Amino acid sequence: MFLTRTEYDRGVNTFSPEGRLFQVEYAIEAIKLGSTAIGVKTKEGVVLAVEKRITSTLLEPSSVEKIMEIDDHIGCAMSGLIADARTLVEHARVETQNHRFSYGEPMTVESTTQALCDLALRFGEGDEESMSRPFGVSLLIAGHDENGPSLYYTDPSGTFWQCNAKAIGSGSEGADSSLQEQFNKDLSLQEAETIAVSILKQVMEEKVTPNNVDIAKVAPAYHLYTPQEVEAVIARL
Amino acid sequence: MFLTRTEYDRGVNTFSPEGRLFQVEYAIEAIKLGSTAIGVKTKEGVVLAVEKRITSTLLEPSSVEKIMEIDDHIGCAMSGLIADARTLVEHARVETQNHRFSYGEPMTVESTTQALCDLALRFGEGDEESMSRPFGVSLLIAGHDENGPSLYYTDPSGTFWQCNAKAIGSGSEGADSSLQEQFNKDLSLQEAETIAVSILKQVMEEKVTPNNVDIAKVAPAYHLYTPQEVEAVIARL
Amino acid sequence: MFLTRTEYDRGVNTFSPEGRLFQVEYAIEAIKLGSTAIGVKTKEGVVLAVEKRITSTLLEPSSVEKIMEIDDHIGCAMSGLIADARTLVEHARVETQNHRFSYGEPMTVESTTQALCDLALRFGEGDEESMSRPFGVSLLIAGHDENGPSLYYTDPSGTFWQCNAKAIGSGSEGADSSLQEQFNKDLSLQEAETIAVSILKQVMEEKVTPNNVDIAKVAPAYHLYTPQEVEAVIARL
Amino acid sequence: MFLTRTEYDRGVNTFSPEGRLFQVEYAIEAIKLGSTAIGVKTKEGVVLAVEKRITSTLLEPSSVEKIMEIDDHIGCAMSGLIADARTLVEHARVETQNHRFSYGEPMTVESTTQALCDLALRFGEGDEESMSRPFGVSLLIAGHDENGPSLYYTDPSGTFWQCNAKAIGSGSEGADSSLQEQFNKDLSLQEAETIAVSILKQVMEEKVTPNNVDIAKVAPAYHLYTPQEVEAVIARL
Amino acid sequence: MFLTRTEYDRGVNTFSPEGRLFQVEYAIEAIKLGSTAIGVKTKEGVVLAVEKRITSTLLEPSSVEKIMEIDDHIGCAMSGLIADARTLVEHARVETQNHRFSYGEPMTVESTTQALCDLALRFGEGDEESMSRPFGVSLLIAGHDENGPSLYYTDPSGTFWQCNAKAIGSGSEGADSSLQEQFNKDLSLQEAETIAVSILKQVMEEKVTPNNVDIAKVAPAYHLYTPQEVEAVIARL
Amino acid sequence: MFLTRTEYDRGVNTFSPEGRLFQVEYAIEAIKLGSTAIGVKTKEGVVLAVEKRITSTLLEPSSVEKIMEIDDHIGCAMSGLIADARTLVEHARVETQNHRFSYGEPMTVESTTQALCDLALRFGEGDEESMSRPFGVSLLIAGHDENGPSLYYTDPSGTFWQCNAKAIGSGSEGADSSLQEQFNKDLSLQEAETIAVSILKQVMEEKVTPNNVDIAKVAPAYHLYTPQEVEAVIARL
Amino acid sequence: MFLTRTEYDRGVNTFSPEGRLFQVEYAIEAIKLGSTAIGVKTKEGVVLAVEKRITSTLLEPSSVEKIMEIDDHIGCAMSGLIADARTLVEHARVETQNHRFSYGEPMTVESTTQALCDLALRFGEGDEESMSRPFGVSLLIAGHDENGPSLYYTDPSGTFWQCNAKAIGSGSEGADSSLQEQFNKDLSLQEAETIAVSILKQVMEEKVTPNNVDIAKVAPAYHLYTPQEVEAVIARL
Repeated sequence: MFLTRTEYDRGVNTFSPEGRLFQVEYAIEAIKLGSTAIGVKTKEGVVLAVEKRITSTLLEPSSVEKIMEIDDHIGCAMSGLIADARTLVEHARVETQNHRFSYGEPMTVESTTQALCDLALRFGEGDEESMSRPFGVSLLIAGHDENGPSLYYTDPSGTFWQCNAKAIGSGSEGADSSLQEQFNKDLSLQEAETIAVSILKQVMEEKVTPNNVDIAKVAPAYHLYTPQEVEAVIARL
Repeated sequence: MFLTRTEYDRGVNTFSPEGRLFQVEYAIEAIKLGSTAIGVKTKEGVVLAVEKRITSTLLEPSSVEKIMEIDDHIGCAMSGLIADARTLVEHARVETQNHRFSYGEPMTVESTTQALCDLALRFGEGDEESMSRPFGVSLLIAGHDENGPSLYYTDPSGTFWQCNAKAIGSGSEGADSSLQEQFNKDLSLQEAETIAVSILKQVMEEKVTPNNVDIAKVAPAYHLYTPQEVEAVIARL
Repeated sequence: MFLTRTEYDRGVNTFSPEGRLFQVEYAIEAIKLGSTAIGVKTKEGVVLAVEKRITSTLLEPSSVEKIMEIDDHIGCAMSGLIADARTLVEHARVETQNHRFSYGEPMTVESTTQALCDLALRFGEGDEESMSRPFGVSLLIAGHDENGPSLYYTDPSGTFWQCNAKAIGSGSEGADSSLQEQFNKDLSLQEAETIAVSILKQVMEEKVTPNNVDIAKVAPAYHLYTPQEVEAVIARL
Repeated sequence: MFLTRTEYDRGVNTFSPEGRLFQVEYAIEAIKLGSTAIGVKTKEGVVLAVEKRITSTLLEPSSVEKIMEIDDHIGCAMSGLIADARTLVEHARVETQNHRFSYGEPMTVESTTQALCDLALRFGEGDEESMSRPFGVSLLIAGHDENGPSLYYTDPSGTFWQCNAKAIGSGSEGADSSLQEQFNKDLSLQEAETIAVSILKQVMEEKVTPNNVDIAKVAPAYHLYTPQEVEAVIARL
Repeated sequence: MFLTRTEYDRGVNTFSPEGRLFQVEYAIEAIKLGSTAIGVKTKEGVVLAVEKRITSTLLEPSSVEKIMEIDDHIGCAMSGLIADARTLVEHARVETQNHRFSYGEPMTVESTTQALCDLALRFGEGDEESMSRPFGVSLLIAGHDENGPSLYYTDPSGTFWQCNAKAIGSGSEGADSSLQEQFNKDLSLQEAETIAVSILKQVMEEKVTPNNVDIAKVAPAYHLYTPQEVEAVIARL
Repeated sequence: MFLTRTEYDRGVNTFSPEGRLFQVEYAIEAIKLGSTAIGVKTKEGVVLAVEKRITSTLLEPSSVEKIMEIDDHIGCAMSGLIADARTLVEHARVETQNHRFSYGEPMTVESTTQALCDLALRFGEGDEESMSRPFGVSLLIAGHDENGPSLYYTDPSGTFWQCNAKAIGSGSEGADSSLQEQFNKDLSLQEAETIAVSILKQVMEEKVTPNNVDIAKVAPAYHLYTPQEVEAVIARL
Repeated sequence: MFLTRTEYDRGVNTFSPEGRLFQVEYAIEAIKLGSTAIGVKTKEGVVLAVEKRITSTLLEPSSVEKIMEIDDHIGCAMSGLIADARTLVEHARVETQNHRFSYGEPMTVESTTQALCDLALRFGEGDEESMSRPFGVSLLIAGHDENGPSLYYTDPSGTFWQCNAKAIGSGSEGADSSLQEQFNKDLSLQEAETIAVSILKQVMEEKVTPNNVDIAKVAPAYHLYTPQEVEAVIARL
């Protein structure tokens, strides 16, 4: 089935006759192999919940970071190649710090997302910060600024969308339809926590524990839940 | 059918024996997959209307921006790869701001369009701002300057045309012929709004609502319609 | 038939065993697909006339510019890829302006033509102004300097010739033989206008109108005819 | 079996249709050919133990360095291409020295690991420090900082994980399962030494001697065991 | 017959197993397609004569320049790609002018020829002045310096030879043997004119006229013959 | 047998699916074609002995340098491509001189070896000093520093080992096993001379003479034996 | 026979599985097509003699320079691509002049040879002076410095050897064996002249004349023989 594609899909950044960019589409496939992450926006703030795949009891669960802080008011959950995500997050951290330094105020969530996507779009161009291939990662960016709470979703093509709720990774299809059923604009933050973790539970193949799930909120400041706080959310299910 | 082409169409910027540039033609195909956008010029100003494809109720409709402001007096509607469009718009914003700063007056709509097309033409040349492939996007650029209102249409080859009315994207063929029937030079701005949205309605497969349609005018300043204003236009159909 | 060529014609700038540069030859093919343009030199000055292909009534005829001013005393008509032509013309405008600034006098028509051809010759060399492929455009450069009126013809290989009269584009073959029959050195400018437009009429498939024909003269200053002036020439046929 | 891959796996940094990066996967294969290394974290500090393959009695055993010091408080064990490892270690040494110089305090173990992985991730990008292929080496990074002892494991993709215990190299599969059985958080440093060396003994095909095994600890300072100290550990088995 | 070559002849600058550089050999083929040029050295000075191919009566014969001045004391005739020749000549003009400016005396003919050949040799090296392929042109360089008159012949490989008489271009084979018969060291300049033009007449397929032949001499200054002077030479045949 | 490799072994620096770097392995083959060199370390210093292949009586034997001085206290013997070795040695000479200049003391033998290997490892990276392919040479580096005498062996992958004795080149296999039999740590320098030359004699196909063997020692200063000194060693066999 | 090589021999600088560099070997083939050159060293100085192939009586024999001066005390004879040789000689001239300027004394013959070979070795590396392919030329470098007369032989791989006598070019095989028979260390310069020219005579297919042979000596200064001096040597045969 890939036979007729082979003329086009090896060029890192080349259109096929149907106007498609295969390397970007393949990078999107990389994310479908990743662990599931879920974001839910409420009026009180945004909740992020991710599945951590702990393949060995020898691994330190806290070192499998799939939710990271970008700035006091912005955090993100990731799915796909973690090393790629770290590069993007590091870039965003520098951008938000520079913005604070230059303007004396926090960068808006949208500008931060745009800065991340600019870097993602520029793959294959040989300048210093960009990669020679698309970034193989999707992000859920949760933030809180003068416009209130917001949740953005980015993909490897450098495109982003603002969402009320969104799932990424291998379980995203099922999780997205559960989110569509359960989401409404009047959810409390606590209800959002419960929905996110209960949906994560459905798509994961193992029991949910503080070891294999991370939760964070931006409400209005970024906070990564302690194992005890995660335990408490799980207990509510 | 593409067999005899395969020798030529992978080189990003190479002529085929018939004198064609296939990568540019394939980028044009990318736009035929995009959502439909329509522009109509009147003596009072220019109207832009676009279809927004909201694939999930979880998406924030207002974040699917397919009409963007370039400067006070210039806006644009896009169809194709949104991330590419954002790069072009960002480039145009810098150019118009620099022009205001250097000359103390707004950049003309044609110069702005030319600046966008210069960037689009230079793909594959490895300098800092250009892409390593053609930009996979068409723009309808609406503006108002010392020459009155104007509407430009650009394609991925970096060519532009001035138009009275124009449709781009997957529904452009049908929309263009409707525009040719209904357009005349004496349309009022309100009539243009009605024509643009009613044609959009024909080519879209769903009901037209403020959630899946955006409208903007440049008359003489750029203004993106509020959901209420969009609702009002739809109500007039 | 192209089979034996395939080893050589994809390299942008590579000789075939017979000593040919195929990419340049293919770019010349691109021009054979372009609209027809005609130039006629008289003692009084030079006339340029071009066919404008207005594919839709929605297009603004005046925005389909196929004759452009380079400097007060130089204009050019083009056939082929319009975006490429704009790059060349813009380059020539900068060169002529720089020349005026540095030497306090206009650049000669030949030097301007040479500057254009230098840029055209340098494709595939990766420096800032040059393209990564041949420019897919031919130009008829009409000018008036201390040596009187002159008409130059350039092709994508960067070669130029001085002509008394010349046609380029899809109808050039027929138009050139008509020009050879009708041209003589004692033509008045008005006779040249008539010959140029009447030959254009022969090779165009539609009726000639001010909407689909542009005329300009350099005698001794560049002047693009108004629709009324074009109408008057057509009326004389 | 590799047939269908051949379209994708030669590009140094290209996604396959399934979203995989084959060159990175092949570099990981290079490590499976390497000698075995084991790291065990205890409350008192971290123990590293490696197999040295002395292929000839003419080689100076002490010159086959598979455990190297990065800074006073950080050491690492390696498996794979030793020349690649040396480049990474040298880079880390410069980073930690620069950090001490700029901030007057040691670099944390995680930051050091991140710096190593940043370099590993950037292969194929043509800047000065990065390689034109993935680094064919895995590291076990043992350190002690303000957060106490820690053990990191890096792979050629530039990803890292924090571990309680980990084995890399040709014998890693068997060694990892032995570690899972024998590791608990209350091990003393001496018990960790015994476990590491006894597991190494299982996966090596020859007798364990101070000539073919190296041991180091970071507790809290880096110390490479003398042959006598290694002898003593072996004697305890 | 070209089959066994195909592995080698596409690389711009690669040896074949027999030690040949095919791209240079193919460029030499390009010259065999060019118009014929002849140079004859006498004690009084050097004569250059070239065939001009005027393919259309619309072309201005004087604009088909195949003999160009390099400096007061050096001129050259060319055969092959005229745009390439112009680049070389322009380079030589700058070199000779710089030499006059720096040393207050004219550049010798040999140094000028060497400077041209240095540029020709450096194709494919990506620096600013060199081309990405061999220059497809041969030159006959006629000059007069402190060593008296001299005639050099250059080919696309960047090699040059000093000659008493030489023909290049499509008729060079026949012309060279005629020159060997008719040349002797005691020719007067007028006799050389006659020999050059009479040989040109043999190899051209049309009647010789001031329109399709150019003549120049360097004796000791460069002088391009007026149509009247050319007429006079033809009349002597 | 090489068939299945062909996908991978042409990329200068690409992993095969089994994690191998074929270009480095092929460079190692180049050394197996080279002449044999032997190094032996004693407490008194290090002895180097090499076979010189004098293919013609017209060659000056002393100009076939296969042992070269790096610094007063370091010399090296080489096998493989001599021109590559000269580049590495020249690089090492500069490094050791710079070290003396900057620190006022000689560079250690290990640091010198590391500097050589850093350069060897960086092939294919396009910076100024590195090569576009692996260096096709192995070195035996003999030196004497604050740690006493030492002998290092480097291969084209940029890896190095410290040895008591080592042979490289076409006869290395047989020579290495002879060295293992005859080496012990208590050899005198004179005994080491005898062993090195007698083993060289076994693997060479001709009689050993001062013309086809070179000997050097570092004890503690570098000294290349005169023909008389070589003769004396041969006489002792 | 070349079939199995085709995977490797096109890469400019790539090892084959047997450890060979084919492009260098093919460049060496280029020299076997060249004219023969011979060098003979005596105690009084070095003699160089070359065959000049005068393919046409129109060529000026003195302009076919196959022996060139590098500095007062160094000359060289060449065989292969003359334009490549000129580049190397020009490079050596600059180096020797710079050395004189910086150190106030002539550069040694060996250093000059090393400088030439450094440039030859660096092909394919894209810096300013190096070529994108191996230099297709061999040189015999004759010189006289503080160590007396010396003769070096270089090949396209950048390797050099010091010789007592050496032949290069198409007749080198036969000439080398004649040289081995006739050379001895006590030859006078005059005897060396006779031997060099008589051997040249054997391998050339035409009669030896001052027109097709050049002779030079460095004894101790470089001197190119006049036709009369060449005549005198020929007369002695």
